[in-house]
Amino acid sequence: MAKSWEEVAADKRARIAKSIPSVWKIDTSSLSDNVMDVPEKCGLLSSEELAITNSTAVELVEKMATGKLKSVDVTTAFCKRAAVAQQVTNCALEFFPEMALKQAKELDDFYEKNGKTVGPLHGLPISLKDQLRVKDLECSMGYVAWIGKYDEKDSVLTSLLRKAGAVFYIKTSVPQSLMVCETINNISGRTVNPRNKNWSCGGSSGGEGANVGIRGGIIGVGTDIGGSIRVPSAFNFLYGLRGSHGRLPYGDMANSMEGQETVHSVVGPLTHSVADMRLFVQSVLAEEPWKYDSKVVPMPWRQTEDDKAKQKIASKGLTLGFFNCDSVVMPHPPILRGVETVVSTLKENGHKVVPWKPYKHDYAVDLIGGIYGADGGKDIHAALQASGEPAIPNIDDLVSPELPGVDINGAWEVQRQKWQYQNEYLEQWRQMEEKLGCEMDAFIAPITPTAAIRHNQFKYYGYASAINLLDFTSVVVPVTFADKDVDKKDENFKPLNKIDGIIQAEYDPSAYHGAPVAVQIVGRRLSEEKTMAIAEEIGKLLGNQVTP
Amino acid sequence: MAKSWEEVAADKRARIAKSIPSVWKIDTSSLSDNVMDVPEKCGLLSSEELAITNSTAVELVEKMATGKLKSVDVTTAFCKRAAVAQQVTNCALEFFPEMALKQAKELDDFYEKNGKTVGPLHGLPISLKDQLRVKDLECSMGYVAWIGKYDEKDSVLTSLLRKAGAVFYIKTSVPQSLMVCETINNISGRTVNPRNKNWSCGGSSGGEGANVGIRGGIIGVGTDIGGSIRVPSAFNFLYGLRGSHGRLPYGDMANSMEGQETVHSVVGPLTHSVADMRLFVQSVLAEEPWKYDSKVVPMPWRQTEDDKAKQKIASKGLTLGFFNCDSVVMPHPPILRGVETVVSTLKENGHKVVPWKPYKHDYAVDLIGGIYGADGGKDIHAALQASGEPAIPNIDDLVSPELPGVDINGAWEVQRQKWQYQNEYLEQWRQMEEKLGCEMDAFIAPITPTAAIRHNQFKYYGYASAINLLDFTSVVVPVTFADKDVDKKDENFKPLNKIDGIIQAEYDPSAYHGAPVAVQIVGRRLSEEKTMAIAEEIGKLLGNQVTP
Repeated sequence: MAKSWEEVAADKRARIAKSIPSVWKIDTSSLSDNVMDVPEKCGLLSSEELAITNSTAVELVEKMATGKLKSVDVTTAFCKRAAVAQQVTNCALEFFPEMALKQAKELDDFYEKNGKTVGPLHGLPISLKDQLRVKDLECSMGYVAWIGKYDEKDSVLTSLLRKAGAVFYIKTSVPQSLMVCETINNISGRTVNPRNKNWSCGGSSGGEGANVGIRGGIIGVGTDIGGSIRVPSAFNFLYGLRGSHGRLPYGDMANSMEGQETVHSVVGPLTHSVADMRLFVQSVLAEEPWKYDSKVVPMPWRQTEDDKAKQKIASKGLTLGFFNCDSVVMPHPPILRGVETVVSTLKENGHKVVPWKPYKHDYAVDLIGGIYGADGGKDIHAALQASGEPAIPNIDDLVSPELPGVDINGAWEVQRQKWQYQNEYLEQWRQMEEKLGCEMDAFIAPITPTAAIRHNQFKYYGYASAINLLDFTSVVVPVTFADKDVDKKDENFKPLNKIDGIIQAEYDPSAYHGAPVAVQIVGRRLSEEKTMAIAEEIGKLLGNQVTP
Repeated sequence: MAKSWEEVAADKRARIAKSIPSVWKIDTSSLSDNVMDVPEKCGLLSSEELAITNSTAVELVEKMATGKLKSVDVTTAFCKRAAVAQQVTNCALEFFPEMALKQAKELDDFYEKNGKTVGPLHGLPISLKDQLRVKDLECSMGYVAWIGKYDEKDSVLTSLLRKAGAVFYIKTSVPQSLMVCETINNISGRTVNPRNKNWSCGGSSGGEGANVGIRGGIIGVGTDIGGSIRVPSAFNFLYGLRGSHGRLPYGDMANSMEGQETVHSVVGPLTHSVADMRLFVQSVLAEEPWKYDSKVVPMPWRQTEDDKAKQKIASKGLTLGFFNCDSVVMPHPPILRGVETVVSTLKENGHKVVPWKPYKHDYAVDLIGGIYGADGGKDIHAALQASGEPAIPNIDDLVSPELPGVDINGAWEVQRQKWQYQNEYLEQWRQMEEKLGCEMDAFIAPITPTAAIRHNQFKYYGYASAINLLDFTSVVVPVTFADKDVDKKDENFKPLNKIDGIIQAEYDPSAYHGAPVAVQIVGRRLSEEKTMAIAEEIGKLLGNQVTP
C-alpha cells in the first residue's frame, strides 16, 4: 500500500535529522528565543572554525587561492555551523556534509597538484535554496509529492557555480508553493528567525535567510518573484540582490507555476556584504551563463558601470529618490525610522536625496496579484493533490476555489497593462530627471511594512512585488533594529484602508524590539553594478557592512 | 446609418490616391511586369533626385551634416520616388509628403541657424510600416475597423527616430492581421513585387519591401514575429535585421494579439546595405531606448563587439555553420544554390564553414504555430468583426473555427517547452564549439524555401519562425537571382512529407526566373553587432553590397 503523505513527510524529516552526524548534535533543551550566540557558545566549532565562518567570502576565496586555507577546513567549518543552524532554526531540507567534504577534498587536491584554483569561488561553500537542483539529491521544494525524486543533473546555476569552484552542503527550506514570505511546509514544518524564534525568517528563501543570518552560510542563493530574496534578507539583517530578469541563470530550477512568464522569478544571493554579493555575481557572469540559459542577457560584468557609480559616490554626487509609504500600507514606526536614517545619513554625507512619488503602486500590486493567481491556483493544487497534503494556511488566498483565473486573452491583456505601466513609470523617472537636471540614480523604499514579523502575520507583499512587476534591480540594505523605546506606536494613526488598519494595529513595540529593519535600493532594469555600488556605500555610511 | 466596411475602405483608398499630388502622377497604362526602371524612366525625378535616391543613407546624412545637401531636397526626392513606388506596387497605407516637407524644412532651418544637426539621422527620410504610430495620422494596420482613429502620440521608436532627425513621409502596407508573409488587405488590396508584379513583395512588412526595394525608401522599418522583416527583405534583394527581442523599442506600436509575450514580435530595418542598417541601429541606441520602453535591454551599441568581429573577418578567422534543409521542407533549387554560393564564397576567402544540424526545427515550427494560434484566433476575429470585413484567404488557418487555442496552464506549458528547447539548442551550439575547438560565430540558413514567390503560394514559415522561437539575431543577405537555365527542377525529388511535396511541385524555373534569392545569417541572442558584421562581409564577398 502506498504511504500516506504524513508517512512520506515523516520519513523525510527523519532523514534530515539523520544527516547531521551525531558528534555535531548540540544540546537544544534550554535555548533562549535568540540563538545567534549558539554557534559561538555550543562548543562544536573550534576558534579557527568560528573565525572562518565569521569571515567574508572575499577573504576566504583569497586565502584558499593563496594556499593559506584549505577548502576541507572551510567546508567543515560551515557544515558544522549549518548543523547548528539547522538544530536551532530548522532551516534545512537537504544537508549533505559528506558529499560536500568529498567535493572540497577534490578541490584541495586540484590546487595542490596544479598550484591554481578551478575558478573564482574555489573551495567556497555556498548554500542553496531547495529549488536549485543538485545532481543525485532530492529537490522537494516543500512539496510532499516531490520527495523521492532524485535529480539527474544540476540546474544551470548549480553547474556554473560548481565550475567556478563552489562547494554545496545544504539545501534550505521554503514555504509550500514558494508563494509566501514566511517559511513553513508540511515536510519540515516552520523555519524560525535566529534572532528570535517567535519571528519569521521571511520567505520564500527563508531557510537561506536563517542559515546565512546565523552564518551557517556565507553566500546563500535564493529566488524572488514577490520579495522572496529581499524579505528574508531584511528579516535577517542581510544584503540581498533581486537582479532584473535575465541577469542570472534560472534554467532547470524547480518552480511553482513553471512556464509562467508574465512576471519572472529571478535568482540571486543573500550575503553579509555587497563585496560578497559582487564576488558571486562576477563569478557567475564570468561563466557566460547566456550560453546555457536562453533567458540570460549576454551582459558580462560591466566594470565601467561599477567604476562610474563609485566615482559618483567618491565625489558625493549621488542623487536618490525616496519614499516611505506606497499609499497602500503605512510602514510601522521602525521602518519609517529606517528610511529616515538612510535619507539623513546620505544627506549628511553630501549626497542629494529627493522625495519620489511611488507611481500607482496600488495598481501595480493589484496587477501582480492577478498574475500570481492567473491559473486560479491550478498548478499549486495539482502539486498538493499529488500527495494529498493540505495547503498551508498562508496560501489560502492563492488556492481559494473562488479564484477565477484568466483565459489566454485575459493573460495577454494583463501583459499589455504591465508593459504600459512599466513604460509610464519610466516616464515618471525621466520627468524627475528633467526636473532635477541630473540622473536619479536609484530610489530608497521600504521592502516590507514591518521589521522581522511574528509568525503568520505577513500580509502585504506590495513593497516587494511592485518592484517585481517593474523588473527593476533591487538591493536590500540592513539598516538598524526596532527599538521599543524609540519606535513608539502612533496612537493617532488614521488607516488608509482596511489592510492598512490591520497591519498598523499589529505593531507592538515590545514584540518587535530588536527586530532587523531594512530598506531596498531600487535601480532601473539591469542596473546591478550601479545599484549594488550604491547599496554598498549606504551600508558603509551606516556602519553595517561586513559586521558578523 | 453607419457606413459599410466596403464604403469605409473605399473612402480610405480614395484618400490614399489623393495623397499623391497630381503633378507626381505617372502614366501606368503600359507597365511591364518588372517596374524597377520606372523611377529612372518616368521623368518625374530629376537627375539629382535620382542620384539622391540611389545613394546610401550613410552618404546622405554625411552630406546633410556638412551642408552639402538639404533635407528638403532629399525628402522631395524620396517623396517623389515613393509616389512612383505607390503607383506601380501599391505599397502605401499613408502617404504624407506635406507633413514630411514641413519637417524637413524645420530641420534645414535648425541646421542653418545652429550650424549643427539635431542628431545622427538629421534630415533623412525613413519609411515606416503601418504599425508605427505617427502623431496625427491613422494607423489602420490593414484593418478596416481601425480607419479613422488618429494617433495622439508617436510610438516610442517613431519618437526616438524623430529626435535623431529622421523625416517621415510614408506608412507602408501590411497584410490583414500581420500574420502572413504576403501583403494583402481589404483596404488597399495587394502590394506587388517591383521586380515582377506576379510575385509577392513578401510580408508582413511587404510595403516596406516593395518601397525600399524600388528605392522609394532608403531605410524601412518593419517588424518580425515569423519572418515579417526577413521575407520582404529576401524577396526584394534587401538586407533585413531581425534583432533579438529587447534590442530595439516596440513600445506603443499597434499590433495583432497585443500582450502576447510567448514569442515577441521585434522591430528592425530593411536596407540596401549593412552600413545603413548599422547607422539605423546605432542612431536608435544612442537615444537610450531603454529609458522609454521597459522591454529594451540597456545595451548601448557595443563597438567592441563590432571591432572583434571585424578583426576576425580581417584575419580570415570566421567559423560558420550552415544548413540548406530544415528537415521539413526542402528549398527550391535557387535557394539551395544560394546557400551553396555563400558557403563556397566564404571558403574561397579563407573562412571555415561547417555543416550545422538544424536541431529539432520541426518541433520548433509546431511549437510556434501553437503560439500564433494560442487564443483560437479570437483577437483577429474581434478586429474583423468590428467592421464586418471578411478574413483574407491567407489567414484561414489562423481564424479557423476549429482552432482550439489553449488555456493559461496550456500557455505556461508551451512557454516551459520553448525555454527548454532554447536551452537544448544552446547546448548543441556549445557541443559544436567543443568539437571545433573554437567559437561558431553564426550559421547560414535559408530564410524561405523559395525565391520571391508567386501570389498566394506562401505556405511554409518554418525557416523564419524557428529563429523567432529561438530569439536569435538574424540578418538577411541578398545573394543572387533565380535562373531558369541554372536552377533546374529536380525531377527525382522525393518529398519528405505532404507540404514538402506541394511546395517542391510549385517550383517552375520560368516563373521564378529573376526572382531574388537570399539567406539569413543567424547569431546567438542579442548578437546584433557581430551578426551584422558577418552579414556585411558576406555581402561584400558576393559583391552585393550597396548596389542600387
